[in-house]
Amino acid sequence: MAARALPSGVITITTDFGHKGPFIGTMKGVILTRFPDAKIVDLTHDTLVHWPAEAGFWLSRAYRYFPPGTVHVAVVDPGVGTQREIIAVSHDGHVFLAPDNGLLGSILRAPQETLIHQLDLDRIAALIPDEPSATFHGRDIFAPVAAALAGGEYGVEDLGPQAPDFVPSWVEEPMVTGQRVSGVVISIDTFGNLVTNIDQKYLAGLTGPIVRAGGHEFSLQRTYGEAAPGQHLALINSFGVLEIATAEGSAAKNLGIERGAPVVVTGASPDEEAIS
Amino acid sequence: MAARALPSGVITITTDFGHKGPFIGTMKGVILTRFPDAKIVDLTHDTLVHWPAEAGFWLSRAYRYFPPGTVHVAVVDPGVGTQREIIAVSHDGHVFLAPDNGLLGSILRAPQETLIHQLDLDRIAALIPDEPSATFHGRDIFAPVAAALAGGEYGVEDLGPQAPDFVPSWVEEPMVTGQRVSGVVISIDTFGNLVTNIDQKYLAGLTGPIVRAGGHEFSLQRTYGEAAPGQHLALINSFGVLEIATAEGSAAKNLGIERGAPVVVTGASPDEEAIS
Amino acid sequence: MAARALPSGVITITTDFGHKGPFIGTMKGVILTRFPDAKIVDLTHDTLVHWPAEAGFWLSRAYRYFPPGTVHVAVVDPGVGTQREIIAVSHDGHVFLAPDNGLLGSILRAPQETLIHQLDLDRIAALIPDEPSATFHGRDIFAPVAAALAGGEYGVEDLGPQAPDFVPSWVEEPMVTGQRVSGVVISIDTFGNLVTNIDQKYLAGLTGPIVRAGGHEFSLQRTYGEAAPGQHLALINSFGVLEIATAEGSAAKNLGIERGAPVVVTGASPDEEAIS
Repeated sequence: MAARALPSGVITITTDFGHKGPFIGTMKGVILTRFPDAKIVDLTHDTLVHWPAEAGFWLSRAYRYFPPGTVHVAVVDPGVGTQREIIAVSHDGHVFLAPDNGLLGSILRAPQETLIHQLDLDRIAALIPDEPSATFHGRDIFAPVAAALAGGEYGVEDLGPQAPDFVPSWVEEPMVTGQRVSGVVISIDTFGNLVTNIDQKYLAGLTGPIVRAGGHEFSLQRTYGEAAPGQHLALINSFGVLEIATAEGSAAKNLGIERGAPVVVTGASPDEEAIS
Repeated sequence: MAARALPSGVITITTDFGHKGPFIGTMKGVILTRFPDAKIVDLTHDTLVHWPAEAGFWLSRAYRYFPPGTVHVAVVDPGVGTQREIIAVSHDGHVFLAPDNGLLGSILRAPQETLIHQLDLDRIAALIPDEPSATFHGRDIFAPVAAALAGGEYGVEDLGPQAPDFVPSWVEEPMVTGQRVSGVVISIDTFGNLVTNIDQKYLAGLTGPIVRAGGHEFSLQRTYGEAAPGQHLALINSFGVLEIATAEGSAAKNLGIERGAPVVVTGASPDEEAIS
Repeated sequence: MAARALPSGVITITTDFGHKGPFIGTMKGVILTRFPDAKIVDLTHDTLVHWPAEAGFWLSRAYRYFPPGTVHVAVVDPGVGTQREIIAVSHDGHVFLAPDNGLLGSILRAPQETLIHQLDLDRIAALIPDEPSATFHGRDIFAPVAAALAGGEYGVEDLGPQAPDFVPSWVEEPMVTGQRVSGVVISIDTFGNLVTNIDQKYLAGLTGPIVRAGGHEFSLQRTYGEAAPGQHLALINSFGVLEIATAEGSAAKNLGIERGAPVVVTGASPDEEAIS
């Protein structure tokens, strides 16, 4: 059973909607209509469109920086209006609300610690419009449910039946085999840094790790400022994952590497070390 | 006479300012200086610059998702510092504040239901700087007036004389002739969906409607997920207007259609139906 | 000694982080965790990356529009994780928190009016994580310190020793010699307006001023609307500095002028006037 916390009144929103049009704004309007004291924080809206993996990755890395009892709404939803489910999850003292399309997969890898319920539109009929739109559940379903959860009106278990299962992430966890770890580029930030899904824990056992991506090799540094401007480097970033960067430049532009590109880290095996 | 509502304390801001520079931020600073309890929501700042029609369109479609008594500030203002008026409008339980340049035209098509006042800078002298800038009324006039309205200090009728008239929208309402409806693309969202100004009510009388734009034909679907990835479709979007989309792709990029482009919907006439 | 003010509860954030990833969002999460009543306003996040001058310029021009007692956090920090200091400044009734890399230089030109302290991580150990990341002090140091300042828990002088000195701005103040003023383009806004660092006070003594940049000449107007669409002009903008614009167009695009480009304003000398 998951740790539970009193609602903090904070709601975060993560989408692939970008900043054009009133989409995020009207979600906030619906939230404030039901729960006027909500404190709403945009996590990010510039994740790769129609790819739940990037939004889910950032949410899994970011939620702990919010107060316990925060409600995190994430809407990257290419299947909106079709038969996909919406799930509400209580996990690690936080609540998550997202389409069941793999977005929450990287958070739910340890399902025994979580409480997952599927939304039953009949049970939440008092919260949502009589005819929710077919294309914008963010505003018509996610927003009012988030307001009801953040305001303490509803709990996760009031929203529908417990979920028997959930859709796994579209991106697999990194593979570790001996002195070799392989993962992918999962996000690119404003600076052009290439953020991977390789957690630092996987690198702990590697001796003299070398990072390879797009035909290039990178050595591990501690921070950007330790490399000369224009020099490429790899580092463990502030969210605990491997990142490839160009000091005071854009690795994405310089290296031509995109989201989804494979990244491999290898250490020298003990034998090789002994020989060399 | 318009329905009135107690101020909700919520203020929305809609502009064409984008996100560079401190323009939106200083508007919020001015609002919080006068009305510390304001809840400020960005509706959108990425509308086409110098074209009030897109901002006005989204505001007309979005305001109902905010609590009654919300103050909506909209600043797309190519004539700032010249003789154009600023109007404050009470309409449908909400308050609107915008330059009188057609921006509010699509909301004010039914003027008998609204209360429209022009700002008289002498009457609001206590709210604004002694010398407002010539180029940023958003910060120097709109923001403090919005704060005074949202905080309940002033009402629309305290701001100046009732307006004898208002400037109509730069974009006409769709034309309907028998089985033919014609409108325009009024916005393009982050996904590249082409949003038109054709309300669903105009399509109710059409038999087997076909949508045409940019030399292409589109059939009406219910939601994106019903089309195969890459397939073009038309649908009624979540704000009740006709939209042209590419499933999991960008219709704007694929079709090369811009804001202002004509969109025509035709139904089969009863006679044609009988013959075919 | 600087004027002091009770905390307003408002925190502004200025960065070069853009809108990709959860960087700004997690800073807000950390702030709300420590100080739940914080009112957080984004000033801008789209300043030129790795160039503290633009962020500092806007902050120096914008802070007065916020309530006295506001805490302004600015993070453009190419040296993050190296030995650069972080400074907290009490100045003109506001508090500023930034890396000591010149960002605050344009605010601190009159240091005798300000109180500047360097952060001592030992003294603020109760506020920050045991092991702050090497690459994201915005979240791990700036955010919790800002929350403590805005909530009234800490004062500037509680954070560390008074600073003996500070790093000056990367961009010098404009040079004035007789009827000639020279400065640079310091920012470009969404409309493509070229914002310079030349304060209007420097132009007061010029007779019939002519503005020159990129091989073009511009005359001074009062507002955009006074020029014909497509015409270039110069004006004193709403933040009190010289700006080069294209009426209803983008000066940056039309003129091909970038940040850092020199801008010179000359007046006719009294002698020349007498002769002509």
